[in-house]
Amino acid sequence: MTGEFGPREGETAIDLPAGHDAGLYFIGRIRTPWTRREDCPKNGREASDVCFLDIDPRYAQGLRDVAGVSHLHVLYWMDKAPRNLVVQKPRHYGAARGVFALRSPARPNPIALSVVDLLGVEGNRLAVRGLDCLDGTPLLDIKPYFASTDSRPEATVGWHASSRRA
Amino acid sequence: MTGEFGPREGETAIDLPAGHDAGLYFIGRIRTPWTRREDCPKNGREASDVCFLDIDPRYAQGLRDVAGVSHLHVLYWMDKAPRNLVVQKPRHYGAARGVFALRSPARPNPIALSVVDLLGVEGNRLAVRGLDCLDGTPLLDIKPYFASTDSRPEATVGWHASSRRA
Repeated sequence: MTGEFGPREGETAIDLPAGHDAGLYFIGRIRTPWTRREDCPKNGREASDVCFLDIDPRYAQGLRDVAGVSHLHVLYWMDKAPRNLVVQKPRHYGAARGVFALRSPARPNPIALSVVDLLGVEGNRLAVRGLDCLDGTPLLDIKPYFASTDSRPEATVGWHASSRRA
Repeated sequence: MTGEFGPREGETAIDLPAGHDAGLYFIGRIRTPWTRREDCPKNGREASDVCFLDIDPRYAQGLRDVAGVSHLHVLYWMDKAPRNLVVQKPRHYGAARGVFALRSPARPNPIALSVVDLLGVEGNRLAVRGLDCLDGTPLLDIKPYFASTDSRPEATVGWHASSRRA
């Protein structure tokens, strides 16, 4: 909760609950070219590098039929992010905003969500394009992306439209 | 792991790890009209009913600026689903498939993901359209939906295209 992720002026930190309400299993690890936060692409759409999802053998049978899916939702765990910053001031935007209006990795449950192109499946390993996270990031889930329910080309984010960097 | 969610013929159950790797906080609850699983819509796109996201007061400051967002990703916890079924046979499709090729609530980490239309914000409560879950479902996260990174109208799911119900 300190250092590069610590509260900045205008940010709000809260007290978190004493205990957790549910538990997660890491089902594998994400392999990316980036070992330092400052080297990661700003978001997955800007990331052209191929990354890999290495699934723990325990869950490998769950990959059956994944090879025919063009795009996946990948859920992963931002294990280095603080969880108590409900109002944040991202470096690249000036204003302080609520965490639920942001895609910051720092959130009460630091579950990151990316849409990736599936490039191939080989054994327990999926090759994908579209991730921007650190090498070794814990993997939580993989879901097929259905255009009918998941695609909303008309979506808008009010604060973002009016505060883009020039 | 038994009853309505138990393994059916052709399904595969695994042994789960002895302990969890990370913990979740429930940040609120989802209010829907559905109290029995059989009453829930088949998916969010078919659900026209208004539902509510009630955020715990502890996290309420995190809602700042959410009102200007048109669509949200909602992450929630399918607390009644088994976590050990890596190969499953959904009732409405004939074949057994890997869990990572399905959107089944039963998965190693039963985190459900829906895209919703944000209809309004009043205090700690968000009115949304597009959910299909049971009343009282625990809420994990809310994220703004960015068309630039999240929308993929061209996405296809191979097994689904060839196995739709007539």
